[in-house]
Amino acid sequence: MTQVVFSAFDYQMMTQAIALAKQGIYTTAPNPNVGCVITKDQAVIGQGAHLKAGQPHAEVYALRQAAEQATGATAYVTLEPCSHYGRTPPCAEALIKAQVARVVCAMQDPNPQVAGRGIQMLREAGIQVDVGLLEQDAINLNPGFIKRMKTGMPFVQLKLAASLDGKTALANGDSQWITGPKARQDVQAYRAKAGAILSTAKTVIDDNASLNVRWQDLPESIQAVYQQDSLRQPVRVVLDRQAKLQNPEYTDLKLWQQQGEILTLHDLAIEVPDPFKSSHQSRAAKVVEQQFDLPSVLKQLADEHNINHIWVEAGAQLAASFIEQNCVDELIIYLAPRLMGTDGRGLTQLCGLSSMNDLIELDIQDVRMVDSDIRLTATIKKK
Amino acid sequence: MTQVVFSAFDYQMMTQAIALAKQGIYTTAPNPNVGCVITKDQAVIGQGAHLKAGQPHAEVYALRQAAEQATGATAYVTLEPCSHYGRTPPCAEALIKAQVARVVCAMQDPNPQVAGRGIQMLREAGIQVDVGLLEQDAINLNPGFIKRMKTGMPFVQLKLAASLDGKTALANGDSQWITGPKARQDVQAYRAKAGAILSTAKTVIDDNASLNVRWQDLPESIQAVYQQDSLRQPVRVVLDRQAKLQNPEYTDLKLWQQQGEILTLHDLAIEVPDPFKSSHQSRAAKVVEQQFDLPSVLKQLADEHNINHIWVEAGAQLAASFIEQNCVDELIIYLAPRLMGTDGRGLTQLCGLSSMNDLIELDIQDVRMVDSDIRLTATIKKK
Repeated sequence: MTQVVFSAFDYQMMTQAIALAKQGIYTTAPNPNVGCVITKDQAVIGQGAHLKAGQPHAEVYALRQAAEQATGATAYVTLEPCSHYGRTPPCAEALIKAQVARVVCAMQDPNPQVAGRGIQMLREAGIQVDVGLLEQDAINLNPGFIKRMKTGMPFVQLKLAASLDGKTALANGDSQWITGPKARQDVQAYRAKAGAILSTAKTVIDDNASLNVRWQDLPESIQAVYQQDSLRQPVRVVLDRQAKLQNPEYTDLKLWQQQGEILTLHDLAIEVPDPFKSSHQSRAAKVVEQQFDLPSVLKQLADEHNINHIWVEAGAQLAASFIEQNCVDELIIYLAPRLMGTDGRGLTQLCGLSSMNDLIELDIQDVRMVDSDIRLTATIKKK
Repeated sequence: MTQVVFSAFDYQMMTQAIALAKQGIYTTAPNPNVGCVITKDQAVIGQGAHLKAGQPHAEVYALRQAAEQATGATAYVTLEPCSHYGRTPPCAEALIKAQVARVVCAMQDPNPQVAGRGIQMLREAGIQVDVGLLEQDAINLNPGFIKRMKTGMPFVQLKLAASLDGKTALANGDSQWITGPKARQDVQAYRAKAGAILSTAKTVIDDNASLNVRWQDLPESIQAVYQQDSLRQPVRVVLDRQAKLQNPEYTDLKLWQQQGEILTLHDLAIEVPDPFKSSHQSRAAKVVEQQFDLPSVLKQLADEHNINHIWVEAGAQLAASFIEQNCVDELIIYLAPRLMGTDGRGLTQLCGLSSMNDLIELDIQDVRMVDSDIRLTATIKKK
């Protein structure tokens, strides 16, 4: 197999397709973000992005725009065109019908059961297909979709916030305002990209947390491209082992007041009444020694609820469980520019890490200021 | 007074003079870093930097190179030329003798007793003098010299190092290897720039700390421009209230084995024998309630030892004292990419900050990776 040499024009067009794909990062879940550019004689004749599950795919929008000019054209797509009939007919078929001459894909479909079938269909129809242009950028578009397709598990981001001396809360437990308003907007942006926001009943009860995306709290840069009326609420997943939230005393919590789907998970051994709200599902999940078995919880969320990407935001106890059960793909750590002193609650003390024999070593992927706070993106080193 | 409009050529030449000044950042203490470029007909005819106290000033080197061409030339100097006879004759006089036509200074001499006299001398000799080009860059060259000239106090940098969860040491007290080798090289570079490295007898005894600059441990980028044989050792200042280090049991400490000046400070009330090493001076300093009065210690170091710039590297107790006594100009905080858990010693716990009523708020000036560690530069917000 010879190595494909892509031209500068190819790079430029795929870069544009990737930029188009990003238009969907707040809305496509559980579908992947995909962008498509169609060119002829070095000119763009069609472009599109997949914006929402159930709506047409990127290739379809681009082909509609190109219309009969598509004959003999080149299509740049950030993901291998689909080959199966889902909610929409397969894009590979549409490209064949349109008689494009060449298709450039940034990456194969990550699902091992379909990988390459779309490419094969196109090639069998006599279309030149080149794969792998700006592949890493395309992978970065869909960490959750790709992980679920490849492993059956969702991509998990765990949020932590602390002062520079590692304190997560004031002595009175108040932790909501450790970081500044811009960092809190930043958290809203992460929530908005996720398929689910996961927390615990304790956090929902103690903080009366809504766990939703509030359009008015998103950064202005996102508001500018993401209209309020297309706001998608991630599924709110609440670990509620003893089904406390079903208790009548909690019917006034903010959680229930917001629109969007709510999924609570409880211990199989607990008797649970019917949920009192149509948007609320209550499911049993595996519990081991009074702790949720997180790998099986995550598998359940991926398999039964098509959740690609989970944003975990909870107390230090659950954070520690996620770390200890090796269920974290990425840590997002906010450090506030202050020293809180010994009266504050410790990041690792509450994390329950005291039993660990070894230090947890991180790889810092990114560090930047978010207004006056610091944001770190890190992965945990394999031992 | 009209605002001077500098040309693009002026900016270019002063930028070059500032780059020249930086050649001396490891060697000029207690003198300031100064660079000079002399031009004629838009061409450089001389340049120089002040490299070491006692050696010629930047202007002298530049004038020597320009020789008789200096007549009618323009001199760009990062600091107002000196007007007094010190270890060398005044540079203002040399510029007058050389008959330059114009002098551009980035900033006035910060010493209020001399500020403007060099400029006045030049103007009285009929030379055009323009002041203020790239002033902030020139100020950044000499934070210590400028602070001491203006206030009589040295510029203090306090180093802290912790894990991401704010732990400064393992439970056994071993803190030497929290950060990685590149961060430790970075610390060597900070030490090398300082006029003094300040620590405590406890640190010197517990860690057998040398508190010196080790050329072989400097970053390669610095080794490339700073020859080993011109290595300047900052004065090592050790707070040793009870003059423990004079005790014969400590004569084998690494501190004494290294070349360079050592200054120990002890409580006036303590009887202290003659220092046993010629490079060692022992001085009394003000102690209040068993703690050194840090403002008066710093004043003493500035007044009696001409120290502009102090790098403080010690245990968390002393760090807390510096913060509480408002003696820190800049915090340099290294965060290692790990979580150390509850067994580690806390940054603020050891800092003795538990008695503080309020949080300490910081302004982050800079954040960057040093290999796999994070380095923050911060100032403390005034309350």
